Amino acid sequence: MEHYLSLKDIDSLPNWVAEAKSLKANPLHYKSLGAAKTICLLFFNNSLRTRLSTQKAAMNLGMEVIVMNFGSEGWALEYGDGTIMDQGTSEHIKEAAQVVAQYCDIVAIRAFASLTDREKDEAEVVLNGFKKYAGIPVVNMESSVGHPLQSLADAITLSEQNTKEKPKVVLSWAPHPKALPHAVANSFVEMMHLQDAEFVITHPEGYELSPEVTKGAKIEYDQEKALEGADFVYVKNWSNYKDYGKVLNQDPKWTMNAKKLGNAKFMHCLPVRRNIVVADEVLDSSQSLVIEQANNRTYAAQIVLKKLLEGLNNKTSNTLKTEK
Amino acid sequence: MEHYLSLKDIDSLPNWVAEAKSLKANPLHYKSLGAAKTICLLFFNNSLRTRLSTQKAAMNLGMEVIVMNFGSEGWALEYGDGTIMDQGTSEHIKEAAQVVAQYCDIVAIRAFASLTDREKDEAEVVLNGFKKYAGIPVVNMESSVGHPLQSLADAITLSEQNTKEKPKVVLSWAPHPKALPHAVANSFVEMMHLQDAEFVITHPEGYELSPEVTKGAKIEYDQEKALEGADFVYVKNWSNYKDYGKVLNQDPKWTMNAKKLGNAKFMHCLPVRRNIVVADEVLDSSQSLVIEQANNRTYAAQIVLKKLLEGLNNKTSNTLKTEK
Amino acid sequence: MEHYLSLKDIDSLPNWVAEAKSLKANPLHYKSLGAAKTICLLFFNNSLRTRLSTQKAAMNLGMEVIVMNFGSEGWALEYGDGTIMDQGTSEHIKEAAQVVAQYCDIVAIRAFASLTDREKDEAEVVLNGFKKYAGIPVVNMESSVGHPLQSLADAITLSEQNTKEKPKVVLSWAPHPKALPHAVANSFVEMMHLQDAEFVITHPEGYELSPEVTKGAKIEYDQEKALEGADFVYVKNWSNYKDYGKVLNQDPKWTMNAKKLGNAKFMHCLPVRRNIVVADEVLDSSQSLVIEQANNRTYAAQIVLKKLLEGLNNKTSNTLKTEK
Repeated sequence: MEHYLSLKDIDSLPNWVAEAKSLKANPLHYKSLGAAKTICLLFFNNSLRTRLSTQKAAMNLGMEVIVMNFGSEGWALEYGDGTIMDQGTSEHIKEAAQVVAQYCDIVAIRAFASLTDREKDEAEVVLNGFKKYAGIPVVNMESSVGHPLQSLADAITLSEQNTKEKPKVVLSWAPHPKALPHAVANSFVEMMHLQDAEFVITHPEGYELSPEVTKGAKIEYDQEKALEGADFVYVKNWSNYKDYGKVLNQDPKWTMNAKKLGNAKFMHCLPVRRNIVVADEVLDSSQSLVIEQANNRTYAAQIVLKKLLEGLNNKTSNTLKTEK
Repeated sequence: MEHYLSLKDIDSLPNWVAEAKSLKANPLHYKSLGAAKTICLLFFNNSLRTRLSTQKAAMNLGMEVIVMNFGSEGWALEYGDGTIMDQGTSEHIKEAAQVVAQYCDIVAIRAFASLTDREKDEAEVVLNGFKKYAGIPVVNMESSVGHPLQSLADAITLSEQNTKEKPKVVLSWAPHPKALPHAVANSFVEMMHLQDAEFVITHPEGYELSPEVTKGAKIEYDQEKALEGADFVYVKNWSNYKDYGKVLNQDPKWTMNAKKLGNAKFMHCLPVRRNIVVADEVLDSSQSLVIEQANNRTYAAQIVLKKLLEGLNNKTSNTLKTEK
Repeated sequence: MEHYLSLKDIDSLPNWVAEAKSLKANPLHYKSLGAAKTICLLFFNNSLRTRLSTQKAAMNLGMEVIVMNFGSEGWALEYGDGTIMDQGTSEHIKEAAQVVAQYCDIVAIRAFASLTDREKDEAEVVLNGFKKYAGIPVVNMESSVGHPLQSLADAITLSEQNTKEKPKVVLSWAPHPKALPHAVANSFVEMMHLQDAEFVITHPEGYELSPEVTKGAKIEYDQEKALEGADFVYVKNWSNYKDYGKVLNQDPKWTMNAKKLGNAKFMHCLPVRRNIVVADEVLDSSQSLVIEQANNRTYAAQIVLKKLLEGLNNKTSNTLKTEK
C-alpha cells in the first residue's frame, strides 16, 4: 500500500480488522517500528477525534509527530495549473507538498469539502495534490469525499459488537441545522460494500448520495421499514448532494429515538447534535457504541500507519539490496 | 487523589511543597514514571506559563504530551442537560469528555471565567463536565474560580524564600484597565488558609472576593496599614465580585511601589501590567520573586502529575491483584 | 557562539557548511546531544518550512520541542521602557523572555517586519528583547531584518551544487503584489559577502536594499546584463526600502523565465508566487534548486542547534570544574 486515501487501499478488510484488534490488545507492541520516522499531521479544518487519535496511534508506534494547522499557521495554497498567482494564494501545492515531504516520512491531511462547488470538491485537490507531488505516503484524515479512518474504525466496532452471521445494518439520514459533508456517509457505504451484511440506506427522497458510491446498495425511503429488524443503525446527516451543499430538509421525524432504534446498536461518528440527530435516551443508553467507535479511531489509524511504515521499511531494504 | 481541581485535593501542603522542592533539585529523577502515559492539555483560553510549564513538567516525567487549543481547533461545546442542539454548539460535553479520555491518561484543562454570569462561572461547567464524564484524572490549569497550579507554585516560592517562623503575607489588590477573573486571588487565599502565617487581604471597599473564599481571613481596607511589617506582598487585580465582572475602580494609589513595599518580597502570578499594577522599580529590584514563581510552576505541575501517575499505577496494580 | 541572530554569529562559514553536509549524511549521529534539553519555538508569524525544519532538526538531535504561536496563543507584548501599560499590551518582554527561559534551554523566535516603521523594524525589539532578557541562547527564525537560517541553508545548497572555483551568483529582484520584508535578501547578501564568488545584485532603480547591507556589493540595474554568464540566480521580491514597505513596482519584465535564466541554477527561499516571481517553466525544470534549499533548512537548523548545545554543555562542564 502506497497511500491510505480511501477504503480502496485496503487489500483485505477482515485481515485489517483482525490486526487492528490485536493492536488494541497490545498497543505498544510495535513501539520500535516507527523509530526515527516522522509524521506530519496537516489540518486545513477543525478536528478533535482525528487530531488526538492519529497522534496517539503514531506515538504508540514510536513515531515523532508534528502537528500543523495549515490553514492558520501556513500559507494559502494555489492548486491551479499555470495560474498567474497575483491573488490571495501565496504558495503552490507543487512546492508545498514537496517541501513538507522533506521533513517527514508520512503526511496525513484533513481538508473538508467546501460544499459550494461539487466538481471541485470531488476533484479533491488538496489530497490529490499531496499524492501527486509529495512522493511520500499520504493518509486521508477526511477529505471532500471520504473519511476512511472513520469507516475503518466503524468496521472494527462492528466486528467487535456483531454476534450474527449476517447482521442487518442501516445507514439512516438525520436532520441537522448546518450543511454537512458527505465524506463519512460515503466511506461508511463503501465499507459496507466489503461486509457480509444486509445493508440498507434510508433518507428522505431527494437526499440520495452520489450514485457512484451507493451503486448496488439498497435504498429505502421509508425509515420505519428500513429499520425493521436492524442490528446496527448508523445515523448521520449529510447535506443535499444533487442541489449540492443545500439544507433542504430538517424534518424532526428523521431524528433517531429509542422506539425507532428498537434493539439495535446505535452508531455515529461524532460530533453529534443531541436531540436533533439523535435523542438523549439513545446516546445515554447502553445501546450506543459512539464512545467505542471513537476509541477504535486510534487502532484504525495505527493499523494504517503500521502498514505504511512496513511499506517504507521494505522499500529501504529493497533499495539496500539493489545497491549491493 | 483522583483529580487536581483545587487546593482541597492536596492532603498535606507542607509535604507536597517539600516533595516539589526535591523534584526541582532533580527534575528527571522520575523520568520513567510517565512512560507510555499521555496527557492532553486542552486550552479554551490563552496561556504562556501554564502552557509551557505543564508541558515541561509532563516531559520531565517522561509522558507523551498532546496540546490542543480546544476553542479554535475543536468544536463548540454544549453543557446543558437535555438541550436541543440546533444552535451554535456542535458537540456535547458528555461525548467530548469521554472521547478525549480514549486518547490520554490525564487531561488538563484551562477554561476562564466569562465574567458576565457569576452563577454560570461558579458552576465551572467545563471542568466539572470533564470531571463528571471523562473518567480519568482532570487537572485544573485555571478555571472560572481557581488556579491551583499557580497557588501551589506560590507555596513553593514562599517556602523557599521565607526565613521567619510566622511571616506576614499580604494580598494587595491593584488597578487594571480590563476586567480580570478572581481565580488567582481565590486560590492564593485558599492556599494561605493552609499556611502558618499572618495573612491580610487589602483592597478598596466593595472589592470583596467571594465571602466563601475569604471566610476567616483578615480584610483591611487601608492598604498602608495592611502592608505594615509585611514579609511578602502578593499583588493582583481582580474585577468586582458583587457587581460581577465590572471594573469600578482604577485608582492608581493602589499601584504597588517601592515605598509601600518596604523590605517585603514582591509576588505576582504574571502577566503583569507594568506601572499600572506595580512600578518598574519593584519588578526590576531584587525583591521581586515573579520569575522564581514562574519557574516553580514547572515543579508545581510536576508534583501534581507525579501524584496522579502514582494513583494510576496503584489502580492498575490493584486491578491486577483483584484479577488474580 | 552564544546566540544565532545573524550570519555574524558564524565563525567560519566553510566549516559550518562542511559540518552541515556531514549531518545531512547522518542526521541522527548526534541524537544523544540534545537529551534532556528543550527548545521553544515561538512564532509571532506564519511559517511552513521554518516551523517543520527546525522541529525536525531539534528532534534529530534528541531535543524536546515545544511549539507556540505566541501571537495567538499567548499575550500581547510590550517592548517600551518605562511604559505605563494601560493599553493593549498585557505583558512586558522583560517578564516574557525571562519566563520562557525557565522552561527551555534554547528559544527560537520568528517575528517579521511590520513594514510600516523602518526604525522600529530595524531595532528588532522582539529578537533583541529575548536576547537581552532571556539569558539563554536565542535563534533567529526570521526577524525584521534577517533570515540567517535560510541563508545558511542557501550556502549549503550552493556548496553542494557549485562546480566552479569562483561561480557567478546573481540576486535578482522580482515583482510581487504584496509588500514583502527585506530579511531574506539581506541575509543572502550577507552570506555572499562570505563566499568566494562573483556576486551581483540586480533590481529596478530605487529598489536598493539597506546600504549598510549591500556595502561593497556590485549593483547592476540592467537585469539582462547582470544575468550574463550567471551560474546561480537567486530570485526574491522585497518591498521598497527607501519609501519603506511600499510596493512601487510590479513590472512583469522582472519576472524570471527560462530565457533569462540561461544555463544557471534557479534559487528561491519559498513560498513563491508562480508566474509572477518566476515562470512555471523554470520551477518545473531540473535547473530549479528550491526543493533542495528547503531540504537543507533542516541541516542549517541542525548545525546551529548542535553548536548551541555544545556551548551549553561546555558551560555546564566549566561550571562543574569551577565548583570543584
